[in-house]
Parts: sequence; structure tokens; C-alpha cells
Amino acid sequence: MIATPVIIVNFKTYEKGYGAKALSLTKILQKVAEDTKANVAVAVGPTDIKEISHESSLPVFAQHIDAIGYGSHTGYILPEAAKEAGAVGTLINHSEHRLRLADIEECVRRAKEIGLITCVCSNNLGTSKAASLLYPDFVAVEPPELIGGDISVSRAKPELVKGTVDAVKAVSPEVKVLCGAGVKNGEDVRKALELGSEGVLLASGVVKAKDVEQAIRDLVTGMV
Amino acid sequence: MIATPVIIVNFKTYEKGYGAKALSLTKILQKVAEDTKANVAVAVGPTDIKEISHESSLPVFAQHIDAIGYGSHTGYILPEAAKEAGAVGTLINHSEHRLRLADIEECVRRAKEIGLITCVCSNNLGTSKAASLLYPDFVAVEPPELIGGDISVSRAKPELVKGTVDAVKAVSPEVKVLCGAGVKNGEDVRKALELGSEGVLLASGVVKAKDVEQAIRDLVTGMV
Amino acid sequence: MIATPVIIVNFKTYEKGYGAKALSLTKILQKVAEDTKANVAVAVGPTDIKEISHESSLPVFAQHIDAIGYGSHTGYILPEAAKEAGAVGTLINHSEHRLRLADIEECVRRAKEIGLITCVCSNNLGTSKAASLLYPDFVAVEPPELIGGDISVSRAKPELVKGTVDAVKAVSPEVKVLCGAGVKNGEDVRKALELGSEGVLLASGVVKAKDVEQAIRDLVTGMV
Amino acid sequence: MIATPVIIVNFKTYEKGYGAKALSLTKILQKVAEDTKANVAVAVGPTDIKEISHESSLPVFAQHIDAIGYGSHTGYILPEAAKEAGAVGTLINHSEHRLRLADIEECVRRAKEIGLITCVCSNNLGTSKAASLLYPDFVAVEPPELIGGDISVSRAKPELVKGTVDAVKAVSPEVKVLCGAGVKNGEDVRKALELGSEGVLLASGVVKAKDVEQAIRDLVTGMV
Repeated sequence: MIATPVIIVNFKTYEKGYGAKALSLTKILQKVAEDTKANVAVAVGPTDIKEISHESSLPVFAQHIDAIGYGSHTGYILPEAAKEAGAVGTLINHSEHRLRLADIEECVRRAKEIGLITCVCSNNLGTSKAASLLYPDFVAVEPPELIGGDISVSRAKPELVKGTVDAVKAVSPEVKVLCGAGVKNGEDVRKALELGSEGVLLASGVVKAKDVEQAIRDLVTGMV
Repeated sequence: MIATPVIIVNFKTYEKGYGAKALSLTKILQKVAEDTKANVAVAVGPTDIKEISHESSLPVFAQHIDAIGYGSHTGYILPEAAKEAGAVGTLINHSEHRLRLADIEECVRRAKEIGLITCVCSNNLGTSKAASLLYPDFVAVEPPELIGGDISVSRAKPELVKGTVDAVKAVSPEVKVLCGAGVKNGEDVRKALELGSEGVLLASGVVKAKDVEQAIRDLVTGMV
Repeated sequence: MIATPVIIVNFKTYEKGYGAKALSLTKILQKVAEDTKANVAVAVGPTDIKEISHESSLPVFAQHIDAIGYGSHTGYILPEAAKEAGAVGTLINHSEHRLRLADIEECVRRAKEIGLITCVCSNNLGTSKAASLLYPDFVAVEPPELIGGDISVSRAKPELVKGTVDAVKAVSPEVKVLCGAGVKNGEDVRKALELGSEGVLLASGVVKAKDVEQAIRDLVTGMV
Repeated sequence: MIATPVIIVNFKTYEKGYGAKALSLTKILQKVAEDTKANVAVAVGPTDIKEISHESSLPVFAQHIDAIGYGSHTGYILPEAAKEAGAVGTLINHSEHRLRLADIEECVRRAKEIGLITCVCSNNLGTSKAASLLYPDFVAVEPPELIGGDISVSRAKPELVKGTVDAVKAVSPEVKVLCGAGVKNGEDVRKALELGSEGVLLASGVVKAKDVEQAIRDLVTGMV
């Protein structure tokens, strides 16, 4: 398992998030992680898993795996292939890549079978609880009120995150909750942890930052 | 552009088609291609594009790209990422990964924009003609009568492939047609080319062969 | 709410399951339901909801609703439209129409909002538990071992159904479980109820029966 | 076939577009169609096809059919069911319901087989040409520049519509083109026809109009 609290940085398909630029970005995050002893992981596109896993010491997550096994599947991401390429874990059901319930269940089961850490994303209290009963390692909740706007965890009503953490823990005490929206700075990270989450999943705040090093340095201040 | 006639070997997510085994497989194909001067390309999973492109001299195709650009997309295959990883081309709309018409059009357009060779798969005469009007480099037709059974091109009625070739050429003379089903041996390759196609797309006949080298050696005999 | 135990007959898109033939079929089921006081409901295609609701006294379920509201949606099934047409409930996430987790949650929530009974289908223990945390009225489980073969509930190992019933009840005691596979005759119905389910969801055993009346008469014998 | 020029009004899932309100709306359109001898058709949700077909004299289109036949399909729209319910035609691949190329082809083929008029929607020049090679009765083009904004056909550059009409006619002279975006008033209808289209497909301009009768009366002035 990955140590917590953790910051997972999702590179998405941002212009600075793939290929050689993704590796450079990872190196900056790695430096700050080493300096500060903070747990930082990256979630990268499938074509970059292998290189970044080999060239960096940060844990690498796939952004997605498909609910498939060996066989006649073309253009899908075989869990075993993500693993062999060097991924230690995978996001599942990201808000930009919603899956059918049956496929989430199969992805979690298959990932566990081969030793990938699982982080299922969910969009509200109901789906967070349901997802936690599939027993992934993490559930990353994205309270709708916190997505995409200016509202951040530290300024929003605390029950938004705490309510989900409590509900998930009531159903599946082993499942760790990540805060998947509304995290913009160290203060938000601190608040997210204080509310019971064991880390954050974020993207643009780091990847699109003018000064990536400064952005991640600020975020990790919330973890100590 | 890739030289024709060409054999594109689709590794799918076969047990021998990803990771270290995919590289070994590619090396065997490369050796035969070099020995015989035959044009052979491989279509590999996204996690393997980078390594196989760098470690092999064979042209590498992505098995799929997504109809997206830079931005907030998680777990999808950015065309630019496939290209930077080393792909020279991509399959689009494989029978195991059917796309919406609007996405096929966008994939072809985006792939051309960044210099990826495009091979759109289609399932019958109607969709082959429609696909050819999107002006990909190749249309790979899979006549339903030839999929999955024992019937092969060389033994089937010649009009199955010839009819599609003629229809595509009537609409888009520049588009090259590949035979995407019913090719099991060198005699099938020879017949496919004789009927007007400029190559073949196949998978299990090579990847799942007991003796891969022998399988590909036999196939290329049909190209000379 | 609908009275239980209940037999829900899914008409699918069987040749005898739509239009005028669907109405005739419903009339036969209605007659047997009236004769025997058994609770029988039908799940019909969207184009037939209105007529069958008006011409029959049996409760009518939609086979599916979409996770949408009023607005710019073309060719989808608005929950309000199913309701106004006369549906009293709806299947959600049938094995032939799997939905994304987020959409299942929204379908259940929207259906409740407007007063439709909800029956979420699920494929195994994990997804049944997860689905039950979305608090539908029913979860219809289809133990994979019982689908499509000759094995029926009454002959299979009892723990297949009982395990799911117990797991669902442990998580969501209010949720009723239906047995969604392996029910071929009255003895299977009896066994399914004995194992803790509160009804069955079935299709071909009735709709494709040579003698529909005899088939439903046999099934309802298991309910008394 | 339906007489042209034609105005097809898509009711979508607007609040006023389903159930009893949909029938009232249709009656208003019917009255204006009868008064003016204009060809007006409606595209309604699946639950409303039967009633509106029986209660109104206007031609009724399904908003969508699925690429399926008789069999084990739950919650999908069987083409035969739409037909038996009274639909004379169907939209296919609407911008809010994009389909895979293989499914568009099958929908068109199946619809023709059972005598439904087909109107395939497309989003640009490339997909319009491709769609026209599947030989539907109509291709409804939605030039992206005309969607959703204030720009209308009569004020936009004429080549936007004319270019598509010419391209489609060059490939499939029998296919009629409808203008599927940018039509807000009678002047737009007049312009759309002048540019070579044989009708328009529109939605909110009628269904969400404060005064539906006035809106449709204005639109039909462009047809004479």
C-alpha cells in the first residue's frame, strides 16, 4: 500500500501532462516530495506509465484500466499491462471517465488480483457509499458543490467532506477517503485531512500552475 | 506514409501481446521483415507504444486514439501522446472498439493534423464506403462472412473483398483497402492482394501461433 | 408500493413482446393474476407503456429510464414521461442495459422523486450490495451461475441466492431482493422465496412459452 | 415518403414536449399545417409515439431507434415497435444521441426494411458526406457555426449550408438535406430552402416559444 496522507496529482491530457513534459513535471514533484518527505503520487496517461515509472521514484497510477482480461480486446488498457509497465495503482471511474457499476466492480476485483492499488472516484454521498462497498483502497469524493468553482474545502461547509468520510467509514471502515475537489492550496489540504480524508486528488492546481514547484510546495505544507 | 503491401499485426490484449512478451514478439516479426524485405507493422497497446517504438525498427500503430485534444480528460489516449511515444499510425474504430461516426471523423482529422497514419476499420460495404469519405489512409474491411470462422479469403467468394475494394475506390480513389478478416496464411495474403487490397490486418494467426516466426514467414510469402 | 411476493415479467424486445401482441400477452397474465390473486407485473418497451397501462390492470414497469430531466435530450426516456404514460415503476441497470454507477444513482433518485418504484438489477454479490446502498425498492440479482443455462434456483446451491439476500439485508434491510435468473417453473419460484427473495424477475420462460397461460399458472403455484 | 419542403419539430424532453402537453402542442402545429398546407412533422419521445400518431394527422417521427431486432434487449427501442406504434420515420444519430457508425448503418438498413423514413443527423461536412453514403432519406446537417448561438442561416455565410448540400448531392443525389441548426424564423426557413435544403429540423424555437402558434406560423411563411 501507499503511505498516507497522500497527494495524487492527475496529469489528465493537459498539454504539460504527457510525454517528455510529463517526465519533467514528475521530476519537480519528486524533488519536493524528497525534500519534504511528503507522500506524492502521479496519475499519468497510459503511454507514459512505463517511462515515468522507470525514471522516477514517485508511485505512478494509471488514470484508468479497462474491465478486461487477456483476449480479443483492441485499444483498451489491460490491467496486467498497466501493472507490468510500472503502475502501482489506478484511478477507476474518474468523473471524466465514468464507468458502469458492473465494470467498476470488475476493475476493482481485477486490480486487487494483480496487486494494483485502487482509487474509485465518486460524485456524491450515495455513489461514495456504494463504491466503498466494492472495497477499493481509496474512494475519492468530489462533492459537486466543490467542483470547478472558486469554493475550496477550507472555505466550504465542513460537513460536505466530513459527511462523506463518516458515511464511507460507517459502511467500509477500511476504505480511505480522498478529497477529490476543492483543493487549491496547503490550507485546503490541511482542512481536508482535518475533516477525515487521508489525502487529496487534484490536477490543474499543480499541472497548470505557472510555478509547479511553488504550487506543490504550498500544497504539502498542509500535510505536516 | 507506410510502404505497401503491408501486414499489420494487431497484438490486442493477448497474453503474449503486451509488455516484455510484446517486445519479444516484435523482434521476431522484425527479423522476418528484414530477411524478406516485407512490410510488417505492429499495433500495440498504449502502455507498450513507447518501448516498442524505441527498441524495434518496425512501424508501430496505436490500437486506438481518442477524439480529444489537450485538456481535462482522464484515462483517454491523446493522439499527441501516441505520436510522441513513437506511433506512426493508429487503428480507428476496430470491430472491438467501435466509435461514433462523429468521433471517427474527429480521430481521422486529428491524426492527420499531427502526422499519424490512419486505418479505419469497417464492418461491411456500407460502412466501408462511408468511412472512405472521411479520407483515412487505409480502410480495413472485415467482411462479416470471413470473421471468426474457418472461411478464408482464398476460399471465399472473391467478390466479398473485391466488391468492397471497388466501392471504396469508386468513392475515394486515394484510400487504400486492407483485408481485415479471413487471412490465415500466405495463400490468403496473396489472394487478398490479388483482389485489390493493399495489405492485411490480422491478429491471432500470428500472436497466438505456436511458432510465430513460421506463421509470419508463411504470411509474407503471399506478398512477393 | 407494489405488493409482494411478485413476479415481474420482462417482455424485452421479443417478437411477442411489443405492440398488439404485448397487450394480448398482458391480458393472459392479468387473467391468471386475477384468478390466483398472485402479484404479477409486466416490464414493457417504452412505446407500449401507455396503452398497456390503460388497457390492463397489471402494474406496468418501464424497462429503463434515462438519468435525465427536462431539457435538450433527444431519444431518451424521461422518467416523467414513463410515469405520465402509466408506469408505476422501472427496471434500472438491467444486465442488457448496464448503466454507469453515477447514472444508476441518479435514476433511483429521480424515480423516487416522482413516485416510480425502482428495481435495480445487479450481476453479483458485490454489485448487489453496492446497489442496495442506493436504496432502490428492489434489487434483482442475477447470480452468474444461474444465467442462461439449464441450472435453476431450485437445483443450484441455495447459498447462491441466500448469500446475496443476506448481504443486501445486512446493508440495507429495507431493500427487497428479487431473484433475477434461474427461475423456470413454480418450484423455482417457491425455492427463490424460501431463500429470502420477495419475488422473481423473468422473461423468456413466460414470453417465449408455447403456452403462456400454462407457464404463468405454473409459476404462480410457487407463490402460495 | 414525406412531402417536402418539410419542417420537423423535435420535442426533445422539454417540459412541454411529452405526455398530454405534447399532444396539445401537436394539435396546434396540426392546425397551422392544415391552414397553410405546409408540411410539418413532429419527432416525439418513445412513450408518446402511439397516442400522438393516433390522435393527430401530422406525420410522427421517433427521436431514435436502436440498432436491434427481436430478442433479448431490455429498455431499447425496437424499430418494429416504433413503426407499429405509428411512427412514419425516425431521427438517427441526433447530436444529443450520437451513434457508432456501424449502428447508424444498421439503423438505416433496418428502418428501410420495415418502411420507416430515415433522417440521419450529422455535425459537419465530413460526417454529412459519410452519412449520405448510407442512403438515408434525409441528412440533417448542423453546421457547428450555427448551433446554439444567435447566428442564423439567413445571416450566416451562405456557403455553410450550400457547401454541405452540394457535397451530399455530389455523393448521393437522392438524399435530401435538411438544415438542422440556425433556424429561428420564417426568413431562416426561406434562406435554408434557397440554399438547397429541403426542409428544417428544429426544436426550442417552436416547443419553448411563448406563443407556439405564432412561432410555427412565422416559420411556415418561409416555405411558400
